[in-house]
Amino acid sequence: MLNLTGVYHIASGAESIAARARALAVEQSVEMPLEAITSAAVRDDIVGTVEDIRDLGGGTFEVRIALAAATTGNEPGQIMNMLFGNASILGDVTLVDAVFPAEMVSALPGPNIGIAGLKQRVQATTRRALTCSALKPQGLSPGELASLAAAMAEGGLDFIKDDHGLADQRYSPFAERVAAIALAIRATGAGTAYVPSLTGTLDDIRRGTALARDNGLAAIMVAPMISGVATLAAIARENPDMAVMAHPALAGVARIAPALLIGKLFRLFGADAVVFPNHGGRFGYSREECGRLAANARLAVQGKRDAMPVPAGGMTLDRVDEILDFYGPDTMLLIGGNLLSAGDRLTSEARRLQERVAAHRYA
Amino acid sequence: MLNLTGVYHIASGAESIAARARALAVEQSVEMPLEAITSAAVRDDIVGTVEDIRDLGGGTFEVRIALAAATTGNEPGQIMNMLFGNASILGDVTLVDAVFPAEMVSALPGPNIGIAGLKQRVQATTRRALTCSALKPQGLSPGELASLAAAMAEGGLDFIKDDHGLADQRYSPFAERVAAIALAIRATGAGTAYVPSLTGTLDDIRRGTALARDNGLAAIMVAPMISGVATLAAIARENPDMAVMAHPALAGVARIAPALLIGKLFRLFGADAVVFPNHGGRFGYSREECGRLAANARLAVQGKRDAMPVPAGGMTLDRVDEILDFYGPDTMLLIGGNLLSAGDRLTSEARRLQERVAAHRYA
Repeated sequence: MLNLTGVYHIASGAESIAARARALAVEQSVEMPLEAITSAAVRDDIVGTVEDIRDLGGGTFEVRIALAAATTGNEPGQIMNMLFGNASILGDVTLVDAVFPAEMVSALPGPNIGIAGLKQRVQATTRRALTCSALKPQGLSPGELASLAAAMAEGGLDFIKDDHGLADQRYSPFAERVAAIALAIRATGAGTAYVPSLTGTLDDIRRGTALARDNGLAAIMVAPMISGVATLAAIARENPDMAVMAHPALAGVARIAPALLIGKLFRLFGADAVVFPNHGGRFGYSREECGRLAANARLAVQGKRDAMPVPAGGMTLDRVDEILDFYGPDTMLLIGGNLLSAGDRLTSEARRLQERVAAHRYA
Repeated sequence: MLNLTGVYHIASGAESIAARARALAVEQSVEMPLEAITSAAVRDDIVGTVEDIRDLGGGTFEVRIALAAATTGNEPGQIMNMLFGNASILGDVTLVDAVFPAEMVSALPGPNIGIAGLKQRVQATTRRALTCSALKPQGLSPGELASLAAAMAEGGLDFIKDDHGLADQRYSPFAERVAAIALAIRATGAGTAYVPSLTGTLDDIRRGTALARDNGLAAIMVAPMISGVATLAAIARENPDMAVMAHPALAGVARIAPALLIGKLFRLFGADAVVFPNHGGRFGYSREECGRLAANARLAVQGKRDAMPVPAGGMTLDRVDEILDFYGPDTMLLIGGNLLSAGDRLTSEARRLQERVAAHRYA
């Protein structure tokens, strides 16, 4: 049954697009000459077919290809593989969207606590956006990072996450760092939630999650394109009370539209909050792509919680109003470097961010 | 100590390249404004620096950036993260090469058995290239795949691998399929080695490896960009007697040079054989890039075995001589679809491939 749709953009001439589309349908399903397939079941139920071809102009065509969800066994890695494994090596093909059958959606974990759960965690009203900052630079000792975290927490931020560069490093071992930071934040009396970044194998990430739990934490961050999406799903499933934040590191490698990869797939695989580079910062995502990503993260999906969009990447305090007007209150603002630049005034700048977000009147 | 070098290509105007290079050095290290860094140790030992900028012409510059290997803890995922995590999201930056400090190389597994070990496994002389084909299409039952495997083994092929689309699917459960195929090949009396494809989490891949071992197999395949590179390294380390083949699914084409990702990194992380799309087939790698990839896979590296280059992807029997002249005898030829197109003559075509490779006189 061809019940999984991949939507691709192909750079092609009009005269060759039909053949290119058929070739892509074969590439992403059986990957061999059709005339050599003798099994009728494979021909009917497994070989991908071209559902639609639409000329987008400028030498780009949108092609919808129907694939068999049965080939994925509803396993996250295999879903990536069947949607884009080989096609990722074709220089002129982009995966822009996918439509999943209900059975696949139901078999995937989705977010554990979703947007409402994240807001509850930090006792925010549903009518305001959340705030977040990042602990960096890497290279600091656990004590130095803990001091930064305390200063931010005193400013009242909702979430503080590790920089995705923090790992298990000699100068700042994971266990020591997480304990020091968790303790420093707790000592402030603030309701700030700390989100440590977990790296390594599934075993390492499991150990890190357990250690976070031992330190009274209830949220963790992983980078699914580095850890593997199956690791994200396993950790989300095994820790139903934990909020999982997904970081986009290495996500730019494959030509997969961020709105699909980060907005839909990371969410389906278990992310409660998805970090992505906001438009107008250092990175290449357009305003429209960011809007689509946030919309996908919050889309109503039967039986699945929504995921919190977390725009980040070179954001500044003076953009807060503009960003909130664009994303609305179901958003977590992540401002790292700009806040850290405040130096001695870190707490007061964190408080200023927190108050501006709380006071914002949405258009 | 800034002892890990990333080599990047940046599309930029001449007037802005110095600033772009400095910004990239910051992005891939501390990811925050330098003026906000008060720690001298971080400024001296962690913040990346620009080593060299070279104008390649056509609006492209090659930039060498020195990073601190200490930030990676020699963990494969963190090495990917520090070399290209955030930069992957910058649309005009490509990671083209990396230079690793001896300590990092020594801490990484590298191939378990290397080119010589792979040739010994199938009793090939060192003077000839190896052959390989792929079991597909997905959708076939274990029995049907086993029949294909037997026909190929009777033709005398050295290796038979699963199509990377084969996973743990309802119509062909992993355990049943691997047992049927291993048995069918053994029953032919041929010395052919079978390489099952492993998917899912590290746990799944561990179980799959154990099952392969139970069926008398000594080689497995993973797709490191789907499973996560840390999973590749963990499996390679835990199974020092197993040959590990790396599949390029989701490895993309444009943003990390294949010669680095597949030829160097996959090898350092534990791949004995690296599959990649040959030039002139369906995929976008150039002849030069393929040559560099193969050269990197075989480069003499202190204390590390070499990895077997496995050109694949739309290859045909009539290209065998050309391919062997290009890659030389330390190569495994992977021909899938073209061989499977032979239908009833699969065994005789497999034998023809095997004999041509054995008889080839290298230029």
